[in-house]
Amino acid sequence: MAIPPLQAFASDLNRYRALVDQGLKELGWSLAQPAGLYAPMDYFMSLGGKRLRPTLCLMACEMAGGKAQTALPQALALELFHNFTLLHDDIMDESPLRRGQPTVHLRYGLNSAILSGDALLIEAYNRMVQAKPELMPDLVKEFNRVALQVCQGQQMDMDFQNREEVGLSEYREMIGLKTAVLLGSSLKIGAMMGGASATDAQAMFRVGYLTGLAFQVQDDWLDVYGDPKRFGKQIAGDIKACKFNFLRVLAWEHSNNIQKGLLSENFAKIKERISQGTEVLNEDVFPIIRVYDQIGVTQLAIDFKENCIKTIHNLISEKSFSKNNHGLAFYGYCISLINRDF
Amino acid sequence: MAIPPLQAFASDLNRYRALVDQGLKELGWSLAQPAGLYAPMDYFMSLGGKRLRPTLCLMACEMAGGKAQTALPQALALELFHNFTLLHDDIMDESPLRRGQPTVHLRYGLNSAILSGDALLIEAYNRMVQAKPELMPDLVKEFNRVALQVCQGQQMDMDFQNREEVGLSEYREMIGLKTAVLLGSSLKIGAMMGGASATDAQAMFRVGYLTGLAFQVQDDWLDVYGDPKRFGKQIAGDIKACKFNFLRVLAWEHSNNIQKGLLSENFAKIKERISQGTEVLNEDVFPIIRVYDQIGVTQLAIDFKENCIKTIHNLISEKSFSKNNHGLAFYGYCISLINRDF
Repeated sequence: MAIPPLQAFASDLNRYRALVDQGLKELGWSLAQPAGLYAPMDYFMSLGGKRLRPTLCLMACEMAGGKAQTALPQALALELFHNFTLLHDDIMDESPLRRGQPTVHLRYGLNSAILSGDALLIEAYNRMVQAKPELMPDLVKEFNRVALQVCQGQQMDMDFQNREEVGLSEYREMIGLKTAVLLGSSLKIGAMMGGASATDAQAMFRVGYLTGLAFQVQDDWLDVYGDPKRFGKQIAGDIKACKFNFLRVLAWEHSNNIQKGLLSENFAKIKERISQGTEVLNEDVFPIIRVYDQIGVTQLAIDFKENCIKTIHNLISEKSFSKNNHGLAFYGYCISLINRDF
Repeated sequence: MAIPPLQAFASDLNRYRALVDQGLKELGWSLAQPAGLYAPMDYFMSLGGKRLRPTLCLMACEMAGGKAQTALPQALALELFHNFTLLHDDIMDESPLRRGQPTVHLRYGLNSAILSGDALLIEAYNRMVQAKPELMPDLVKEFNRVALQVCQGQQMDMDFQNREEVGLSEYREMIGLKTAVLLGSSLKIGAMMGGASATDAQAMFRVGYLTGLAFQVQDDWLDVYGDPKRFGKQIAGDIKACKFNFLRVLAWEHSNNIQKGLLSENFAKIKERISQGTEVLNEDVFPIIRVYDQIGVTQLAIDFKENCIKTIHNLISEKSFSKNNHGLAFYGYCISLINRDF
């Protein structure tokens, strides 16, 4: 299946984006009372973002034969939920900035950040259930499951921070829960709203899930090998922060004992620098990148990504929506997400 | 309507309590993974409590003609939701203790407290929707509304802490949102599960709401005039903490300019002591209590409470469930809640 140029899909994407932007504008939180609760919510939602999840939701709804407008409450619910997780994660990670602006806990204080995050989650539920009564049980069940899984993933991620090493399969599980299930569910819920069968909706889930995993592998590869100017990040930021990511666990999984020793030793050095409050320099990360190169993590990352893409391809090919021109465009969109060509 | 002795109801109450305790035991969170997420949830739920909201829910279900068991998922949802609010409130209030035990943020850390609170809220939704599909839309709508109102009430409460004075009507609104709507909803949701009409369910809501308000007035009166030994609190704890409560706003509402001056002056002194970290002594609160006595806040509190009770009485009398012996026992239970005779 050849990948169509993204432009083929561009007018649809613009239409979805316009719907989502309009829906977010109509939340009306800038004037809602008590302002102490709604101003932080309004602020956080106004920081922007790619609106990826609601876009996937509307897209899946149309592919299933529905009108995008039908799935708009669910699309907004998914975006609100995503922002709830970001808002509370920012507290847990002590992040000072979100999209270049002060995080809510820095701008409005810890208490407002906790409470307005809670309210975002409730507002998400509020919209998720705006559907025909016969769809509601499945929608709520799906949303509950995903919401809980995202919390479980976040907890696993926090647990990893106190670990020496993390295996590939448990890392994959963590990222699956923390990130990929929400992308999968965005497609699945959109498909459900569009009238898809349970089997088709589940296939959509898997496409989104695998796209999320492949996206993360690509992201983590770019952290080391990407052009820092193009992606606006410092070089090897994850290594400098001693964070586990896909690249690190792929490397560990495929390293021999000597390489394991080198990785452990150099990550321990960085960890010590961090705990002492000393700056981690480019010189500290080079020994690790040399081991990565030796192991051939670039090829490992490509293999992992290609594996995901192959399954995505098969899933889309098997499904009825691949019979019209949606299938190709959708496949192209997934690839473009994974490769950051958007 | 004479108030029956509480014993008349005791075996029902014990049955409700046993159902709730069994339901909470079956959550199985002590072994759930990841333990970092579920252990704090299990710990917090094991701290106990009066299980008032689930009891009200099961009671209302039976009064409406249903079996208590039918409303058990919703009863548990209400208790989980209540504990979610307590868990996050403890962080916001920087409380060290909850029911005599360390709060979650002190025992497990801030991040665990935020995340396990989030998960409690999601687990509450999970159970709230375990109902016949035709009931689900109304259940979710009711629960969403209440959940959001509790957040709004919490925000208003936090806003009040930076204020010089607070009026009776806005204080009443805040307590209504923060506390009373959840009691009202516990009855309403139970009634819905028991097959009550929308009108009866709404009457139940009002009974619970007014019980919540009257309960709070009584609680705040006891803070100053209760026997500290009996209620296990220090004398005038709210005054010492310079907190607004019903008594304070009732006094303010009915004070003349001289009394207003005395109240402002003495609360300002306490506020300054707190900001300096100096201990607030009994001597500091006496001038305020003298003004309270002069204004006659005890009578004002009684009037407020009696007003609520009168409406509760009328609501219960008008409703069909007062035709069987449920009505009297239920009325007695509401009175016992308000007067702390349980």
